[in-house]
Amino acid sequence: MEDLILIIANKNYSSWSVRPWIALTAKGIPFREELIPFGPGATHPKFRELSPTGKVPVLHHGTLRVWESLAIIEYVAELYPDAGLWPSERESRSLARSISMEMLSGFRALRGACPMNMRRPVKAIELPDGVMADVARIEAIWREMRQRSGGPFLFGDFSAADAMFAPVVNRFSTYDLTRDPETVSYMDAMRAHPAWRAWEEAVLAEPWIVPEDEA
Amino acid sequence: MEDLILIIANKNYSSWSVRPWIALTAKGIPFREELIPFGPGATHPKFRELSPTGKVPVLHHGTLRVWESLAIIEYVAELYPDAGLWPSERESRSLARSISMEMLSGFRALRGACPMNMRRPVKAIELPDGVMADVARIEAIWREMRQRSGGPFLFGDFSAADAMFAPVVNRFSTYDLTRDPETVSYMDAMRAHPAWRAWEEAVLAEPWIVPEDEA
Repeated sequence: MEDLILIIANKNYSSWSVRPWIALTAKGIPFREELIPFGPGATHPKFRELSPTGKVPVLHHGTLRVWESLAIIEYVAELYPDAGLWPSERESRSLARSISMEMLSGFRALRGACPMNMRRPVKAIELPDGVMADVARIEAIWREMRQRSGGPFLFGDFSAADAMFAPVVNRFSTYDLTRDPETVSYMDAMRAHPAWRAWEEAVLAEPWIVPEDEA
Repeated sequence: MEDLILIIANKNYSSWSVRPWIALTAKGIPFREELIPFGPGATHPKFRELSPTGKVPVLHHGTLRVWESLAIIEYVAELYPDAGLWPSERESRSLARSISMEMLSGFRALRGACPMNMRRPVKAIELPDGVMADVARIEAIWREMRQRSGGPFLFGDFSAADAMFAPVVNRFSTYDLTRDPETVSYMDAMRAHPAWRAWEEAVLAEPWIVPEDEA
């Protein structure tokens, strides 16, 4: 099989890049990473050449291009059906997709006010309307799914759904958005995962600052 | 198997409801429809009881609730693997998911300025920034996928990806956003589909007006 090439941007900031990267890494799926740091406006002219949307992440597989973080995960889940990217039980899998797509399409207030910034020291900011409602809904999702599965991840073992919420774990922490013990217990599980730690280690070695994403 | 119950809102306005409804109908998948018309603010107190997000569409299957239009389609595609909701060939399926998720997560300018309104007479409006860029990107997607498949739908036969773009077909037409012949040829194919016509017929019988969605 030809190599999977995952094109991403800065690990410190690119909240969409972390999702497929951490999912594939957590499941031991071989891929080559190509990192192109953001230029001005948190974009780069090369993204336009490499991705049909002009955005990253994008997966290249031979001549095929797959874009949108969750569509990349779905494609790789089909290539590696035994890797466990999705929960194996059908009801759990349907819930995992529902919450992953709720993340993909929503939580705009939180995403707008609190850009992912893995290096950022913990510091609260003034929050616009809607952010705390997003936080409450995400906490309800995490609580319900972990009660259902028994944890430590949303569906027991780490899955694509955890990958989709990974940037939120960082946002909750660096913007000091919650201290709910159940939420913190999930965040601790995420931050202790080897794939998270590998991403974080790479973040700390990155030299670039993107002013747009420093809130 | 227990009945699938698809809870939706007004067929004239609910652009998220039309997606799973038209996908299931086009593929002959049996389901019961429960329509709850929008109250003030284009919502309804019952949505909160019936759906974990307080929004429709939501699919009930026994005690399971599946939400987000595309997650509903994925779940039903697993229940009915031979119905052809997704293209059967893997590369096509990955592209179908990429464009479906691009629709799910994006095109905010178009969606904000031009709410779906199936009954609306054709009339152009003044367009805010970003709408025509969304239109151009959607036209590029449709052109490329139909060139690749040979049409008439995005992947030859009608699929989940066409269902995800169904509300855009209405918007392009009623707000007079394009007259590109290739785009119009796709829109004509969509509007001639029996599932589209069944939805449209029900729209014309609906009595409700939602002022928020009359642009």
